[in-house]
Amino acid sequence: MTQEKTNSKWRHKLHEILYEADTPYGRVFNIGLFITIIASIIFVMLESIQSIDSQYHDFLNAAEWVITILFSLEYIARVITVKKPLKYIFSFFGVIDLLSTIPKYLSFFLVGGAHSLVALRALRLLRVFRILKLARYIGESTNLTRALKASRAKISVFILFVFILCVILGTIMYLIESGQDSGFTSIPRSVYWAIVTLTTVGYGDIAPVSALGQLISSFIMLMGYAILAVPTGIVSAEVVRMNKHNVHTNTQACPYCMEEKHRDDAEYCYSCGNKLNE
Amino acid sequence: MTQEKTNSKWRHKLHEILYEADTPYGRVFNIGLFITIIASIIFVMLESIQSIDSQYHDFLNAAEWVITILFSLEYIARVITVKKPLKYIFSFFGVIDLLSTIPKYLSFFLVGGAHSLVALRALRLLRVFRILKLARYIGESTNLTRALKASRAKISVFILFVFILCVILGTIMYLIESGQDSGFTSIPRSVYWAIVTLTTVGYGDIAPVSALGQLISSFIMLMGYAILAVPTGIVSAEVVRMNKHNVHTNTQACPYCMEEKHRDDAEYCYSCGNKLNE
Amino acid sequence: MTQEKTNSKWRHKLHEILYEADTPYGRVFNIGLFITIIASIIFVMLESIQSIDSQYHDFLNAAEWVITILFSLEYIARVITVKKPLKYIFSFFGVIDLLSTIPKYLSFFLVGGAHSLVALRALRLLRVFRILKLARYIGESTNLTRALKASRAKISVFILFVFILCVILGTIMYLIESGQDSGFTSIPRSVYWAIVTLTTVGYGDIAPVSALGQLISSFIMLMGYAILAVPTGIVSAEVVRMNKHNVHTNTQACPYCMEEKHRDDAEYCYSCGNKLNE
Amino acid sequence: MTQEKTNSKWRHKLHEILYEADTPYGRVFNIGLFITIIASIIFVMLESIQSIDSQYHDFLNAAEWVITILFSLEYIARVITVKKPLKYIFSFFGVIDLLSTIPKYLSFFLVGGAHSLVALRALRLLRVFRILKLARYIGESTNLTRALKASRAKISVFILFVFILCVILGTIMYLIESGQDSGFTSIPRSVYWAIVTLTTVGYGDIAPVSALGQLISSFIMLMGYAILAVPTGIVSAEVVRMNKHNVHTNTQACPYCMEEKHRDDAEYCYSCGNKLNE
Repeated sequence: MTQEKTNSKWRHKLHEILYEADTPYGRVFNIGLFITIIASIIFVMLESIQSIDSQYHDFLNAAEWVITILFSLEYIARVITVKKPLKYIFSFFGVIDLLSTIPKYLSFFLVGGAHSLVALRALRLLRVFRILKLARYIGESTNLTRALKASRAKISVFILFVFILCVILGTIMYLIESGQDSGFTSIPRSVYWAIVTLTTVGYGDIAPVSALGQLISSFIMLMGYAILAVPTGIVSAEVVRMNKHNVHTNTQACPYCMEEKHRDDAEYCYSCGNKLNE
Repeated sequence: MTQEKTNSKWRHKLHEILYEADTPYGRVFNIGLFITIIASIIFVMLESIQSIDSQYHDFLNAAEWVITILFSLEYIARVITVKKPLKYIFSFFGVIDLLSTIPKYLSFFLVGGAHSLVALRALRLLRVFRILKLARYIGESTNLTRALKASRAKISVFILFVFILCVILGTIMYLIESGQDSGFTSIPRSVYWAIVTLTTVGYGDIAPVSALGQLISSFIMLMGYAILAVPTGIVSAEVVRMNKHNVHTNTQACPYCMEEKHRDDAEYCYSCGNKLNE
Repeated sequence: MTQEKTNSKWRHKLHEILYEADTPYGRVFNIGLFITIIASIIFVMLESIQSIDSQYHDFLNAAEWVITILFSLEYIARVITVKKPLKYIFSFFGVIDLLSTIPKYLSFFLVGGAHSLVALRALRLLRVFRILKLARYIGESTNLTRALKASRAKISVFILFVFILCVILGTIMYLIESGQDSGFTSIPRSVYWAIVTLTTVGYGDIAPVSALGQLISSFIMLMGYAILAVPTGIVSAEVVRMNKHNVHTNTQACPYCMEEKHRDDAEYCYSCGNKLNE
Repeated sequence: MTQEKTNSKWRHKLHEILYEADTPYGRVFNIGLFITIIASIIFVMLESIQSIDSQYHDFLNAAEWVITILFSLEYIARVITVKKPLKYIFSFFGVIDLLSTIPKYLSFFLVGGAHSLVALRALRLLRVFRILKLARYIGESTNLTRALKASRAKISVFILFVFILCVILGTIMYLIESGQDSGFTSIPRSVYWAIVTLTTVGYGDIAPVSALGQLISSFIMLMGYAILAVPTGIVSAEVVRMNKHNVHTNTQACPYCMEEKHRDDAEYCYSCGNKLNE
């Protein structure tokens, strides 16, 4: 029984470190985790630069093993300490945490056989997705993620709208410019040009050279710029509106029912109706 | 008489499938239509890529015939089932639906004669406008189309304003850079450059090379960026204002006059004045 | 005396045509003026294209004389009919209207002497400023011009702010990239690059090639993009606020004092206090 | 004692000139300072252009000494006249003012020894930071600086968000395009491309060439453009909200307690409660 109690205590302590970022140990753990993630991403990136990889291959490989083992320990610790392990395992961060560990183990087994290099490489690059572990620091509750979720439908309509526009404009430009030596060699490439232009990226790898092509693309740019202000405005308006419905809560607790998260301007508890202390 | 009744029933059923996207059959039809449109666009695009067209010409031709016949059947069905066929035929979607079918038929007749290839090609590319059939899925009633319609006047003024600015700036740059080997060979090309720059597309096919040209174009970019924030803000503000006047309606029907589309906060029917049930 | 009366009547008629766009004659005149301006601009542009100028020089020269005479007549008519000629002559449109006529006359005299070609060319290009005559159709009273005037101070601060940022960022990039063969040959050019980058134009004529240069310019782009959202937001907010204070006026005239421009929701005349007719 | 009084008077006068821009002498001083700063920046820039530096080296050197001495005098005067010298010295402008003088003095001593040219060059370029002295004219109290400070947290989250997105998108593009001859030679370079693309700068020095690469980057541009509207909207919304809470104050002083900065609509002094004179 004492054994169980110690165990429970130990698990409770670990849970505090892993999940509560505002306890002293939790803060230290989070800073360590943050640095490890960043280091891990930097190592994957350096590995992709041939000159660096050929010189420091052994060091990068060793560092990768250390990081993989650290992330594995973190994953196991999280599964053990959380109250509902299955819910965590199949959650967004659960999947990301698992994906952060397996590529290196799998590459170990795959090297033995005669597997294609491309698959192996894709697997190695999967480690970059560890950067999503940083998403913990953006926080689920921030305006950004909520705004993105709320505007999902509007963004889809926006993308569909721009895409339809680009297909039509790209085809028109293909008809005009395809005789010239200007990169408009097929409709898909012309649509690619239209997307590059309407989003104002403008690489310049494909650009109209004929007078008519430049005239029409001038018109496309002007119109596109003005038209795109509308959906951008819609998304902005959505965010502004969402901000308004956003009720500011304080950390005060009701003296009668201990309920928290009262509105900043609340005078009575929203839960029990008693007067809040001022 | 029973004949007529069956006929009417059959037409009603077809109408439900074609026009009511929230019935089970309607949903299946819509998914099918969506896939056919996308496939059709992809085929037109692939046909424009020489290497693919030379290899799969027969397959693409056959696929095009299948799609043309499917769209023809859809068009006929829509004309038969709709209550006011003429109104549909001359509506935006009626014209688009017709245009989606005729290019292939016309190309059949034109091939017989000795027609110019350019006309034939333009005709073939007309099939790309089928993508406008996708506009059905954006919906007439969305904020996007309404906002675009409402800001039409403002967008026109905006385009005129930027165009005037670009003509003047382009001419100034032509005066400065025309001696250099930098692409500013005529005023129209310089105006094209000004439009590419002010809309922040920036291909780089034409770029100032002289010190004075770079100085002035720096100034143009800074000023242009700041100035363009104003019309963009105006369009955004228009959208925000429009959103406010946007009354949310519900699907409730008045129990007295069966009128629908009441405001969400309505207590009395806007049509007959009787109390709505809660 | 009758002579004087006829004269006055004739002047009144002319004034109506020139200044009142909503009378039948005024409308016809405005459409004609609009077309003449556009034609004039197109001719100046075509003249700058060498191949076209060498072929159609005589036609373009003749057309230019016709347009110059038309604009001269318009200018004289405006000066005669307006009540305060001096006020018109020194107003924005008065100056523009005069500038639209003189270049051709001056070029006539200058050709006689041995003047530099550059001055002559600059003079010829001055004709492009005729496009400012189009500004009449944007209208003094539109939101756009008022918003631009109201945000003038904010736009100046914005430009100063971005300029300071660009000078510092350009110098840092010059320090890093100047050894490389990447176009960062002097600080002014590096500042030019910074402006091209921060305004998201991005020609690509100057682009970092060293790893450190690309790292720092990545950071500049990210930070710049996020930071520039703030002043853009300020200008937008200014426009939104201005729109709110924007009182909609109607064309109704008070039946007692004939005062115009009453608020749309006004019940009493703001000038004499009598009830307006409904 | 009279000595002390004169001294105090003289210091008071100097303080007025240096710190109070709305007194006549203060205005003259500020205009002079403004011109000196701009001249100083222009000289540093010209020095970086080899052809100009080799021709006018002696003039630029002399001008630099004059400016350095002027800025030194200004610094000393500011330290003497200000009430709390230490507070000024360690303030933002105190540090900038000091940094504006030392590079030239240091270069004088460093030239004597055998110091590396790079350090010397970096030091010389430090003089560009004098442009921050212009920040005085933007003013601490403007909306811009306050808005930037208020949105600092949001801008950080925004940068982190876009960075995570760019790392993932860059890695995906590296996997697809690395075989091609298109500049995607390593993950860091691909991430650099993703940042250049998502911020819509689009140099074109790295651009996808394979069909799949162009397809995916089209998708990245469309999605990126739509997604980035959300954080931009959030920052805008923040600015709009801040503007609302912005209380306009006037320059009126309370006749009872002399307190200033009352709200524009204040009727009673916020400090002593007495009625303000109208």
